[in-house]
Amino acid sequence: MAVGLESIKQLLPVPGVNLSAVSAGIKKNQRTDLALLQFKTGSTVAGVFTQNRFCAAPVQVAKQHLSQQPLALLINAGNANAGTGQQGLEDAYYSCGMTAEQLGLTQQQVLPFSTGVIGELFPIQKIVDSLPQLVSKLSDQTWNQVAEAIMTTDTQAKGVSKQFSWKGNTYTITGIAKGAGMIKPNMATMLAFIATDLAIDQALLQKLTGDVANLSFNRITIDGDTSTNDAFIVAATGAANNELIVDTNDQLFQLFKSTLIEVAKQLAQMIVRDGEGATKFVSINVGGAKTAQDALEVAYTVAHSPLVKTALFASDPNWGRILAAVGRAQIAELDVSKVQIKLNDVVIVENGGRAASYTEEQGQQAMVEPTIAIDIELGCGDLAETIWTTDLSHEYVKINAEYRT
Amino acid sequence: MAVGLESIKQLLPVPGVNLSAVSAGIKKNQRTDLALLQFKTGSTVAGVFTQNRFCAAPVQVAKQHLSQQPLALLINAGNANAGTGQQGLEDAYYSCGMTAEQLGLTQQQVLPFSTGVIGELFPIQKIVDSLPQLVSKLSDQTWNQVAEAIMTTDTQAKGVSKQFSWKGNTYTITGIAKGAGMIKPNMATMLAFIATDLAIDQALLQKLTGDVANLSFNRITIDGDTSTNDAFIVAATGAANNELIVDTNDQLFQLFKSTLIEVAKQLAQMIVRDGEGATKFVSINVGGAKTAQDALEVAYTVAHSPLVKTALFASDPNWGRILAAVGRAQIAELDVSKVQIKLNDVVIVENGGRAASYTEEQGQQAMVEPTIAIDIELGCGDLAETIWTTDLSHEYVKINAEYRT
Repeated sequence: MAVGLESIKQLLPVPGVNLSAVSAGIKKNQRTDLALLQFKTGSTVAGVFTQNRFCAAPVQVAKQHLSQQPLALLINAGNANAGTGQQGLEDAYYSCGMTAEQLGLTQQQVLPFSTGVIGELFPIQKIVDSLPQLVSKLSDQTWNQVAEAIMTTDTQAKGVSKQFSWKGNTYTITGIAKGAGMIKPNMATMLAFIATDLAIDQALLQKLTGDVANLSFNRITIDGDTSTNDAFIVAATGAANNELIVDTNDQLFQLFKSTLIEVAKQLAQMIVRDGEGATKFVSINVGGAKTAQDALEVAYTVAHSPLVKTALFASDPNWGRILAAVGRAQIAELDVSKVQIKLNDVVIVENGGRAASYTEEQGQQAMVEPTIAIDIELGCGDLAETIWTTDLSHEYVKINAEYRT
Repeated sequence: MAVGLESIKQLLPVPGVNLSAVSAGIKKNQRTDLALLQFKTGSTVAGVFTQNRFCAAPVQVAKQHLSQQPLALLINAGNANAGTGQQGLEDAYYSCGMTAEQLGLTQQQVLPFSTGVIGELFPIQKIVDSLPQLVSKLSDQTWNQVAEAIMTTDTQAKGVSKQFSWKGNTYTITGIAKGAGMIKPNMATMLAFIATDLAIDQALLQKLTGDVANLSFNRITIDGDTSTNDAFIVAATGAANNELIVDTNDQLFQLFKSTLIEVAKQLAQMIVRDGEGATKFVSINVGGAKTAQDALEVAYTVAHSPLVKTALFASDPNWGRILAAVGRAQIAELDVSKVQIKLNDVVIVENGGRAASYTEEQGQQAMVEPTIAIDIELGCGDLAETIWTTDLSHEYVKINAEYRT
């Protein structure tokens, strides 16, 4: 049911990264569910994590280990290891230790990631038992298999590769991500991993990772539910042998940054296109705001309105629901007489009411498209923000009512 | 699809109130859709209205007229007269003027109320044409018919009557309300009207009306969408001939207040029980909070989570979704190790994780009930709040996808 989401192409290997995926029996039907990424010695790794207070055991451990020059990521799908208390924490540490042993690393050099059902005990034995096979399969050619292994309710694997050149050198960025519900990242979405062969200072990479999250994963929402397990990791192996980047004024940094943003944005939009039950891909652009926070508050209020979402599903230009959502957004000031709203370039609201030029036929034409842009101009400032979301369909209810059956 | 909602009984007449309902042809199928309430001279009327910035034309007019000692309410269903700009405002004024003429009142003594589709022009001529018949039908016996006429997607009419006695006098309170979608009142819900024959000072009644709203209509949510048209009105006719109440220390005031709260709470809960597609009636009680605002923030975050709502619909004790919602609530401090969560008295979460005593069977037993209490103890203060909400079902999506067809 994904909206305009093409099957992913063969992802490009990133020099300095080996990876593998196996079935450890956590998911049903023998689907692959356990993955490992290993980075060459000297790689820098940065990450941002969920702001949910009930952050999962693996998130707590990954945050601690991030400063210890990690070189491996152990990722499982099918169990979130969240809401599992002290036992969950011990299982997460143990999984890192056992992985480290196989790779000749320290426990602190492994970051754990989990996605799946919250509140069930972690299947630690299944994972430990699968580690030898997982390590034996490490290869630089297996990005697509890993993208597949980290899926939960996703209908398609998600990945992007891009290359850019600078002074005769070609650099590669490959990233993978998974959705598809409990998506309103407040830092970064549920499991996105991007690697490059560029060499870049860790502190600089960490700052950049936060900035990139705010332009990509932190601008999407499916159901407003921030997960307990969100994590977004960027690893730079340095295998391309450029001089280590330590300065944001470096032109290579600028080129890397813009390509990285592009990769992250594409991955984030893929998650939305494959959102649970999605039949529409919707971008909500709010302009003319006094603050960026106001623009986001209006955009998310519209994006989370079940009434707006069901109207989108029905392709019904019931724009009164958009207007009502804008009107209830918690912002300090709003002069409704200045508000303009457009649906795919059709002006529906101006001067606080139905636009004089608006016809139901125009609205209908805009709403039948699978891709919808809702442009909201507040007319009280010059700040703007864009977020991406989906509709609310029968299929969404079905998926989430039957999730554990 | 209402949850445990009995058909309303014959509502009691309130001395000093006459009312009527007719079909003006605004709704389909000749259903009644236009109602009038008239109060005896000297009645005091108080009201609270939506905080939605795009508040509808009738709300703007009713707010202006409230201070002009109003004696009549004109209510239509089928068209919200919202998002209709200057024309909508003029139509609202005109409907008041024409009603006033029929009743021998001034235009300012009529308050207009509308509910229905947003953004379509107001059918003013149909309403004006129906006024003579509406006035001719005025009677004190027609509360049930009026409760019926103000319905939109409601499956049942909603009303409550209560009487109380004081020093040999019997006083009556009768109230009616309608839901059933775009319900997260931020002042009072979409159209609730309560009348009593008590005599009470207008300023006192106004203050009381706000307090009562905060204990009833402002504590319910179906979809988090605050309507453009919410209004909650209390009228006191004084026909019981008590000495005018001007003091909150008056014992009769206390008795009136507690009975009024009971009536308002019952009406509010009826709206939830008849929420669009509702299969569960859910009370969310948050205790141990530092501030009442924190308790409400946690309660509404859980109530609005589509993942929690679909789990409720499926009777699936997927309590990890409740935990995740608590964890993302925007409150200043939360020590997850102190959080306890119960589902109908089954302890599911303690010390930040799955309760040691919890079994899936217990959770399942709690979740199959049509009435669910979610008790969340934050353990960081002593303030508590309770709100009422519903689940998210296939029927909700169906109703809202097909609303205008």
